[in-house]
Amino acid sequence: MSTNPIRTSTGLRMLAASIILITASPAFAQFQKAEDAIKYRQSAFSVMGTHFGRIGAVVKGEVPYNKDDVAKNAAIIATLSTLPWQAFGAGTEGGKAQPAIWTEAAKFKAGSEKMQTAITELNQAAQSGNLDNIKKAFSAAGQTCKACHDDFRKK
Amino acid sequence: MSTNPIRTSTGLRMLAASIILITASPAFAQFQKAEDAIKYRQSAFSVMGTHFGRIGAVVKGEVPYNKDDVAKNAAIIATLSTLPWQAFGAGTEGGKAQPAIWTEAAKFKAGSEKMQTAITELNQAAQSGNLDNIKKAFSAAGQTCKACHDDFRKK
Repeated sequence: MSTNPIRTSTGLRMLAASIILITASPAFAQFQKAEDAIKYRQSAFSVMGTHFGRIGAVVKGEVPYNKDDVAKNAAIIATLSTLPWQAFGAGTEGGKAQPAIWTEAAKFKAGSEKMQTAITELNQAAQSGNLDNIKKAFSAAGQTCKACHDDFRKK
Repeated sequence: MSTNPIRTSTGLRMLAASIILITASPAFAQFQKAEDAIKYRQSAFSVMGTHFGRIGAVVKGEVPYNKDDVAKNAAIIATLSTLPWQAFGAGTEGGKAQPAIWTEAAKFKAGSEKMQTAITELNQAAQSGNLDNIKKAFSAAGQTCKACHDDFRKK
């Protein structure tokens, strides 16, 4: 008895579909539940915001410039700036996230990359210790934060 | 008319007391409010826990070992492990923090330093890429987490 070619083909298609599902679903596979992803990205943004605010206080002249402090804050921000994006996978709607994050995914991704580039530049300025460059890079980075908040974060 | 020396002395003592208060209070001066400090430390611990858990999954054999992934996770943990402690200043009681954090401050500080040392060792093992060393360092680091949670975190 030969195997029914139609059944085999169907079986193969189902297997292929399963593989696609398995490889496609890890959008938030790093997180057990959507709530975990939401908590993670909010936490990463929160810590990042604290350290960004500390450089902001120096830029605004509220706190005297100290090279080491600004360099440390910028390095922390640089590490954190890479983290939240992995936690916006399919099925993780909620929190302050606007639906546009998923309906305009390419725009959101471009914004996140722009921000990471700006933060890398802020970190370079901070490590080199030139306050004028820090101010410029801080302002540019702040604008990338705001752009995404305007479009993708609930008010 | 000469200035009353007793009044002057009292004034100086009050001034001295004010200076001590000003210099002593920045325990959480980096944070505007106690709630900000609590949110900050909880967020830092939360992100750290996520990445620690990812190495844990490799150590337990649930996820195949990938040197780059473990190294990245360990570097993130190393950065984050230095952060929460600044947010346990006087007046920041609350959240999951046990009062013992402030009544047994030296023990808490020693615990936090032990943890940071263990995380540095985990990061070294992760960067060098020796899975056996990673497993040992992960276990040692996990014990420093647990020790503080047992003594200082609300159940």
